[in-house]
Amino acid sequence: MMEVREEIDIQRRPSAGAMLQLIRHGHATTRADLAEQTGFGRSTVAQHVTALLAHKLLVEDAGPSSGGRPVTLLTFNTSAGVALAADLGATHSRVAVSDLAGSVLAETTADLEITLGPDEVLEWVNDRFEELLARAGRRPDEVRGIGIGVPGPIDFAAGCAVVPPIMPGWDGVPLPAYFADRYDAPVLVDNDVNIMALGEYFTNWRDRTEHLLFVKVGTGIGCGIVAGGRIYRGADGAAGDVGHIRVASDREVVCSCGNVNCLEAIAGGQAMARQLAEAGHHAEVSRDVVQLVRQGNVQAVQVVRQAGRVLGEVLASLVNFFNPAAIIIGGDVADADEQLLAGVREVIYSRSLPLATRHLRIARSALEDRAGVTGAAVLAIESALAPAVIDRAIADQAASA
Amino acid sequence: MMEVREEIDIQRRPSAGAMLQLIRHGHATTRADLAEQTGFGRSTVAQHVTALLAHKLLVEDAGPSSGGRPVTLLTFNTSAGVALAADLGATHSRVAVSDLAGSVLAETTADLEITLGPDEVLEWVNDRFEELLARAGRRPDEVRGIGIGVPGPIDFAAGCAVVPPIMPGWDGVPLPAYFADRYDAPVLVDNDVNIMALGEYFTNWRDRTEHLLFVKVGTGIGCGIVAGGRIYRGADGAAGDVGHIRVASDREVVCSCGNVNCLEAIAGGQAMARQLAEAGHHAEVSRDVVQLVRQGNVQAVQVVRQAGRVLGEVLASLVNFFNPAAIIIGGDVADADEQLLAGVREVIYSRSLPLATRHLRIARSALEDRAGVTGAAVLAIESALAPAVIDRAIADQAASA
Repeated sequence: MMEVREEIDIQRRPSAGAMLQLIRHGHATTRADLAEQTGFGRSTVAQHVTALLAHKLLVEDAGPSSGGRPVTLLTFNTSAGVALAADLGATHSRVAVSDLAGSVLAETTADLEITLGPDEVLEWVNDRFEELLARAGRRPDEVRGIGIGVPGPIDFAAGCAVVPPIMPGWDGVPLPAYFADRYDAPVLVDNDVNIMALGEYFTNWRDRTEHLLFVKVGTGIGCGIVAGGRIYRGADGAAGDVGHIRVASDREVVCSCGNVNCLEAIAGGQAMARQLAEAGHHAEVSRDVVQLVRQGNVQAVQVVRQAGRVLGEVLASLVNFFNPAAIIIGGDVADADEQLLAGVREVIYSRSLPLATRHLRIARSALEDRAGVTGAAVLAIESALAPAVIDRAIADQAASA
Repeated sequence: MMEVREEIDIQRRPSAGAMLQLIRHGHATTRADLAEQTGFGRSTVAQHVTALLAHKLLVEDAGPSSGGRPVTLLTFNTSAGVALAADLGATHSRVAVSDLAGSVLAETTADLEITLGPDEVLEWVNDRFEELLARAGRRPDEVRGIGIGVPGPIDFAAGCAVVPPIMPGWDGVPLPAYFADRYDAPVLVDNDVNIMALGEYFTNWRDRTEHLLFVKVGTGIGCGIVAGGRIYRGADGAAGDVGHIRVASDREVVCSCGNVNCLEAIAGGQAMARQLAEAGHHAEVSRDVVQLVRQGNVQAVQVVRQAGRVLGEVLASLVNFFNPAAIIIGGDVADADEQLLAGVREVIYSRSLPLATRHLRIARSALEDRAGVTGAAVLAIESALAPAVIDRAIADQAASA
């Protein structure tokens, strides 16, 4: 239970790892800041800062002198290692090497069918990791963490997909094992929408709120939930599966899940493409829908606008329930076009309660198609730089010295 | 931001308050347990236990000897003070004195209109507190915390209601001030559904899950959210306001909020009563509906069952989104009857995704009409016995000794 973990955490000794967090997240820039924020004495703080400097996790620079003694500014050394990140989609994947701030140093994308199965796909990922490391001029032993996003439900603790509908052959296969003999680094696995939410939250929203929703509108529709500054996964890791929420519709549409009138069967990218194809337009996948909208096709604009309204109905309910500070819309359809967002906004502001929309921001993903790979990198970095991990690394080196 | 607070918490020194939490919540019963769970040495643990014993927060008893040395069992002293709790409803209130486990020692209820305003209502609450303390044989200086639930949105930090629709005169009035000169204890204010969720969670679910929903079906419909073992309030404190989620309906019903076909306008207790009154039955308020069901009135059974199905549609969506381990249904209508739950179950299990309902429990509130007052007591107790508060009290006494 979370409470219990916190109770136990609360009793830890002064921690270099915790001080690193304060600096990384911009809450402290000097030894004096650290002393003030932690309540520990300057000599204790100085000792931990020295350890972090020795591990090259911090760098120090002379700051602007304010007339009196010069102040030394402490900065997180984002070059003290790299993260490997992969955002695996149903038919398209993106792989990157990032620094420890999550900024991409080298990346590549490819059309790749997830249905090829884990052996073939992860071999490809491994090859790309090697290539990208070389291109970025970094060594494998500089890798501090690996983050992988997959398009299906996952068991976060085990690092595997769980009965994923569009990933035959992946069920229960632990992904960390594929990387264990090549890198001495933690491997974290999450679903594609959660990593997009994490990427967007850490890059653009962390200083403004603790609670937001990231909605991905691609072939289907999914939602990543940030609550209390963390990804919320629910009791079985199934939270955020909004694509199968039933919506009102004048026609009955059977969804791939077997139920009728699920949100994604009415308003997903595939559903939009089908509607336009039925009307005689060339539209097979969600990107075709966006293409038609860009060409000024009136029917395509109407379809996307109406899908936005249907999505808005569901999100209006979730705004009343969850009261997020922001809803970020991403995925193929949203990345390319404002029409979807217009429909969403229209319904949310007319349907949700005033108290819950007073400060609500509804925005397109700023990271666009890099949200996932950025989030996968952040997932890896946050795990690799967790206070307990840093403290252990420092203690181990002190013991072996 | 929560992360930041945790980063700072993580650096605290060994804490008697944190050890008390471990014992209170059943995670430790001996000094050896405490040493194992905190990672601190036996002498450090012994010193903090001695302080907790001196403050009468713990008691020790010789446990069963296992052949070797006798083991001393440490138990939380639930008599080391009392909590005062008030669950204020629109027309009915309950006030109680509880021990530090949240068990009610003395209580009273009354029909009381919240519209009388804060002066009159809180004077009444104060009088009841005095009476009940006397009846329980406890002194005012034994009061460690006061918890108040009110039927409207609140600003938790300020302890006041915020533009509450059914509480004229209460907007922005800080309730703690009414009790400050009588009791030297923290006063916590929350809305009625949140305290019910808290009462049910702490009493019956805390050892089984971190994530649950408590749905109150009374005159209206509201929801308390427990996420990560805590009440989730959202960005503006408005989370859980599910009564105004739009539902599908063949007729158009205008809600008190101005929108049409809100959940509570279709399936709330008041809406059910109106439907039955229109059909010629005597039904003014939600309790009349329950009375008719108990008398075997077929139409009333149908109305309640159908309301359960409508509620189930909304909850099925929230199960997909939030993936709770349990949904607890309470409030006037649910407390008295299984028909509502039957409708809810029927729809949730047919509509929600298998992964999200695999382990889902749907149950009636076990505390029934005491859920609120129990939660108000728990709110006060958790605040009064927070590790930092206990540590400060021990340090203060040590300094003045």
